[in-house]
Amino acid sequence: MSKIILSVNAGSSSVKISVYSASQGQEPKELAETQIDGLTAPPLQLKYTRGSQSICKGKNLEEKISSQNDAFKYMLEQLIADKEFEAINRKEDIAIVCHRVVHGGDYEMPQVINEDTYHHLEALTDLAPLHNASALEIVKYLIKEMPETKNVAVFDSEFHQSIPEHIRTYPINQEIAKKNKLRKYGFHGISYSFIARSVAQFLGKKTSEASLIILHLGSGASACAVKNGKSWDTSMGLTPLAGLPGATRSGSVDPSLVFHYATNVGKLSPSSTESLHISRAEEILNKESGWKALTGTTNFGTIASSSSSPEMKLAFDIFVDRILGYIGSYYVSLHGKVDALVFAGGIGEKSDLLRKRVTDEASCLGFEIDGELNNRKIEDVVQEVGKKEAKHRTLVCQTNEQFEMARLVSVNGKLFG
Amino acid sequence: MSKIILSVNAGSSSVKISVYSASQGQEPKELAETQIDGLTAPPLQLKYTRGSQSICKGKNLEEKISSQNDAFKYMLEQLIADKEFEAINRKEDIAIVCHRVVHGGDYEMPQVINEDTYHHLEALTDLAPLHNASALEIVKYLIKEMPETKNVAVFDSEFHQSIPEHIRTYPINQEIAKKNKLRKYGFHGISYSFIARSVAQFLGKKTSEASLIILHLGSGASACAVKNGKSWDTSMGLTPLAGLPGATRSGSVDPSLVFHYATNVGKLSPSSTESLHISRAEEILNKESGWKALTGTTNFGTIASSSSSPEMKLAFDIFVDRILGYIGSYYVSLHGKVDALVFAGGIGEKSDLLRKRVTDEASCLGFEIDGELNNRKIEDVVQEVGKKEAKHRTLVCQTNEQFEMARLVSVNGKLFG
Repeated sequence: MSKIILSVNAGSSSVKISVYSASQGQEPKELAETQIDGLTAPPLQLKYTRGSQSICKGKNLEEKISSQNDAFKYMLEQLIADKEFEAINRKEDIAIVCHRVVHGGDYEMPQVINEDTYHHLEALTDLAPLHNASALEIVKYLIKEMPETKNVAVFDSEFHQSIPEHIRTYPINQEIAKKNKLRKYGFHGISYSFIARSVAQFLGKKTSEASLIILHLGSGASACAVKNGKSWDTSMGLTPLAGLPGATRSGSVDPSLVFHYATNVGKLSPSSTESLHISRAEEILNKESGWKALTGTTNFGTIASSSSSPEMKLAFDIFVDRILGYIGSYYVSLHGKVDALVFAGGIGEKSDLLRKRVTDEASCLGFEIDGELNNRKIEDVVQEVGKKEAKHRTLVCQTNEQFEMARLVSVNGKLFG
Repeated sequence: MSKIILSVNAGSSSVKISVYSASQGQEPKELAETQIDGLTAPPLQLKYTRGSQSICKGKNLEEKISSQNDAFKYMLEQLIADKEFEAINRKEDIAIVCHRVVHGGDYEMPQVINEDTYHHLEALTDLAPLHNASALEIVKYLIKEMPETKNVAVFDSEFHQSIPEHIRTYPINQEIAKKNKLRKYGFHGISYSFIARSVAQFLGKKTSEASLIILHLGSGASACAVKNGKSWDTSMGLTPLAGLPGATRSGSVDPSLVFHYATNVGKLSPSSTESLHISRAEEILNKESGWKALTGTTNFGTIASSSSSPEMKLAFDIFVDRILGYIGSYYVSLHGKVDALVFAGGIGEKSDLLRKRVTDEASCLGFEIDGELNNRKIEDVVQEVGKKEAKHRTLVCQTNEQFEMARLVSVNGKLFG
């Protein structure tokens, strides 16, 4: 019997809901998608697509929506109220809601969350206060208001559980590391799971036979080395801060840096609450750094196309340099057995300029861009942008975290049933 | 006219003095070398070599020596008192003392230090309190007690002044970065300067034509990409903490990690003094991490030869993984134009096991170890360990920071005259 599954993706300034119909063991079918943007940078804008029909796009909202949970509630009400959307007429029609939870600690699988197990997720929030909180707020609301609906937490870290010990271990006091759960976790795993499977299929291989260097480049950016279908290394660490810079994130810096940045960086930030303990340092490096600090904009498209501005050029060059570092590093870590270099995420999909520059500069490893293919619009899930005769392939993948969450749930009898 | 130059290298637990005779524009000639070890881990031991004659080696000292400056004074008195050492009969025979200073900020050249300019060095100590302090203590002593002698600070960061802006810039608030001088500086530069020149000579090239990936692997470890004789990138950053792990150093970790390690890591350490402000975090990551935290020993030789112990094997594998990451990264950054991979530092010189493992795992880039050459004792300044037919050469270099300091001073008329 088919069920209605919602995939909820609560980001720092947006919330997205995708509605799927799914039968157990089958791929989910998308019925609708709705999104509110601008939670941290007004105006609030609503997007709503039903089937293949765009109902609204960039509609300014006047409503008072001040949190991710408010945005979720607003969109849920809209979906229920929409008479032409037959899949959901009342709350009870929604069987399962999957929530993207950034930090999953040691969880290797999506978890059904109820009142009893909710506190496990709360404990994880200590490791990633800036990242888990908004998803948990929505889970809490649903447990209370829609007790008939099953809530499933899908973790951005679970794909990386396969990272071997010598790569995930930090060379620090191991007693404290174990007690405080300090190790590399890695994130963007829902996206990497989708990409690894989709690219393997495109290459005509089993996922377990595909070895890839994947770049998920969005306002948060990371790189992943996939060895035989599994995560072997990734650039993010204990938290999403480590690794590549992003829209407002510094990426890796000397761990001493924050202590020279400002006094009292170890103190709690004024925006901490009783349940959220955020040090000033975490706030500075996660929210006040990256492109925003270098250029004033968080829009990488603007940065990529403004090479005449020294600040923009510097930001672009920094990003290219750091990306190339991971490509080289993972190429060696995979012993050169790389089926493809894969660009994904908003920037990876849209910036042909970045793809060209990165691939050109990695040509010594055998990657070569095809100018004509690289300039084409990216329309397929996986699309070739590398030269046919190159030693290694270069691809673009349109990742789909919403779909992957619904899929992970529908193919798993325990979660679905 | 030839002068007597002392090179002083004050490390965290040892002080080394090398005595040279030099004429301006000429390479210095070593006359004697003396060293005290065990400042942080007793027993105190003295080593003294005069010319080619070993006077003592591992002689236990009963004297009360509790600081680097005490050790320096003891050895200086010994050199003066030694009737058979004709080069120095009294303090005034010493024309120049060169001091290895770890953090040189924006200095691009060695600096003559007198009472007037001493405060410039003090200001730098804020950036690297754990690293500059002991050298400064000795400089201070000499300015006061030996006013006739010229003191020259030679900086471990100066070789890296050539690192381009997009590599040295951290993606953080640039106003604060400029004000607080927050950028990648890099260290081990005196060693890299010696190695780049010596390896270029070995390869029959001008230094300005040599492009190398150099690994300086000692109890502090770093990697450097040399492009046309100049530093292009290096693994250490604002301080020596970033990059590779070491004997007691974590190397790069998620910048959020310290805030999850212990409470109050931003507070000053109990071992801070009025002039030394060391945060607890800097102490933990610099002094209580690395091999020591993973295995209990700081001796990498023990780690490399104890593969049956899971902790030792893990530490070895972590080191190999992180080293390979930099080799891959710098290979791409140099666009594959690499004349040689160079191993240096105590571990790089001594551990044929590490050299074999690293080179084998980087074979996809064209590095290949020659088993027979790799097993030979390293006796030359530069020695081949790679296969003749390999795409890129693999070398070992016995670095000599003491010599390089004296050389930098004697070839420079301004410093020498």
